[in-house]
Amino acid sequence: MLPDRRALLGGLGGLAIGGAVAGLTGSLARAGTGSGAAETRRFTRFSQQGGDFSWTPRKLDPDECAPVAYDGFWHNLNACGYGAFYSIVGMMAEKYGAPYDQFPFSMLAVNEGGIIGWGTICGALYGAAAAFALFWNREECSPMVNELFRWYESAQLPVYDPGSAARAFVGPLPANAPGSVLCHVSVSKWCHGFNKKADSNELGERCARLTVDVSRKAIEILNAKIAQGKAYKGAFSVQAAVVQCAACHAAGKESDIQKSKMDCAPCHSGNPHLGDKFRKHP
Amino acid sequence: MLPDRRALLGGLGGLAIGGAVAGLTGSLARAGTGSGAAETRRFTRFSQQGGDFSWTPRKLDPDECAPVAYDGFWHNLNACGYGAFYSIVGMMAEKYGAPYDQFPFSMLAVNEGGIIGWGTICGALYGAAAAFALFWNREECSPMVNELFRWYESAQLPVYDPGSAARAFVGPLPANAPGSVLCHVSVSKWCHGFNKKADSNELGERCARLTVDVSRKAIEILNAKIAQGKAYKGAFSVQAAVVQCAACHAAGKESDIQKSKMDCAPCHSGNPHLGDKFRKHP
Repeated sequence: MLPDRRALLGGLGGLAIGGAVAGLTGSLARAGTGSGAAETRRFTRFSQQGGDFSWTPRKLDPDECAPVAYDGFWHNLNACGYGAFYSIVGMMAEKYGAPYDQFPFSMLAVNEGGIIGWGTICGALYGAAAAFALFWNREECSPMVNELFRWYESAQLPVYDPGSAARAFVGPLPANAPGSVLCHVSVSKWCHGFNKKADSNELGERCARLTVDVSRKAIEILNAKIAQGKAYKGAFSVQAAVVQCAACHAAGKESDIQKSKMDCAPCHSGNPHLGDKFRKHP
Repeated sequence: MLPDRRALLGGLGGLAIGGAVAGLTGSLARAGTGSGAAETRRFTRFSQQGGDFSWTPRKLDPDECAPVAYDGFWHNLNACGYGAFYSIVGMMAEKYGAPYDQFPFSMLAVNEGGIIGWGTICGALYGAAAAFALFWNREECSPMVNELFRWYESAQLPVYDPGSAARAFVGPLPANAPGSVLCHVSVSKWCHGFNKKADSNELGERCARLTVDVSRKAIEILNAKIAQGKAYKGAFSVQAAVVQCAACHAAGKESDIQKSKMDCAPCHSGNPHLGDKFRKHP
């Protein structure tokens, strides 16, 4: 977690901070690869091909990308993060080639189950946020991520139905608001609420369909950002619980001891699921 | 969240599932970019340069990479995810060139504060997991991620001290066990426990040092995985609370309604921070 940029830059006199990295330039000569030629290239520390955030964002058609997100979920069981990311960046690769087609897409498979079953960030959300981050820095990505994540907390999901193309379960599935961007909460709330097993085909199908919903919303945001540029703000306002808690628990307030933009309510409003399960299990 | 692979593959008769994606191959002809030549290349759906998980992992020296993780955190304020990831993949780029030097490193900046302040997965942990995922599929990454994440939950952090090279705060910082892989919990527990502001230079410095600790542990795991191959298992056992809860709440058990490998104790053992703050705030 970074301190506030102004606080950081203002708070320390003689320390070198922020973007100043004088003396860190460590370049190494290396032999060229692939061609076998005695090519010598230099890679300078913290540099990258084309410069930071240098890829050009491209508008996409959410309807065209929807089945790609779904199929990407099932492709080698690469799951949610891969499906959402490929439906954006992979589609740019198919349409425009480089640099999009140079990306090692399979790395997104790690996002399954909130990072290989750990239940942290919903992989579909991470895949979409990672796609945004190829094109815009954190300041510009922030309203895009806020819009996507707040929509996810409150939307009734899943919406998408692949019909007869369904891979794990054919037919309608019940929908609810995940309430949280965390996979553990999102999955468990759906399973508990609708009496589904976490290792069921229905849950897998739910997450595949939800990956499409996230892709669709992310592409709407991407297209709006391309159209509006720095003016892009998003439509969702800060969650009521976050407004209430941040009245004291935020920078410059009485008790600046926490950081989060997640809705506070699921974990801090007396949810019975968060009682003492070890000594008072129902 | 994926259902169990066996359950998925076994549970449905006629549905096409899993890795079988017949009919999805959608390749598009495109004009070559950059050179201006009338080159025509084809990018096949769900393909990638060199194939999935095809990058070669390289052993690294954690001591050499430590100051790079620290400096990477501060480089353009790119923060934890960038610092941890660059200290691994960026160092491979500096030493070995392609394909590592083709990666758009700045995309990892999105992990700051658990994804631009949302407080989900600790960005340093994500950066390390993402590096693993360039080289190994989910089955092989799983024990690596488990080892790193369980170590993080229980280790006293931060350990690293850059001495006079400190960027935001010079001198020792207090250490505790984050208890959770979630940024919100990790940051808030440290700030609450040591009476530090979340927007302080000390907290920023703590997270920069912790990024080094994560890099160091991740490189130990990387090197061990390279040495041991598929035999790599890691040393940390499943957390006691996870063992207890999974006796009922897991696949094939009485109440298979949740998914997570996070330690259950911080949120499900009567932590007073998780009471009803909206109606019974202290």
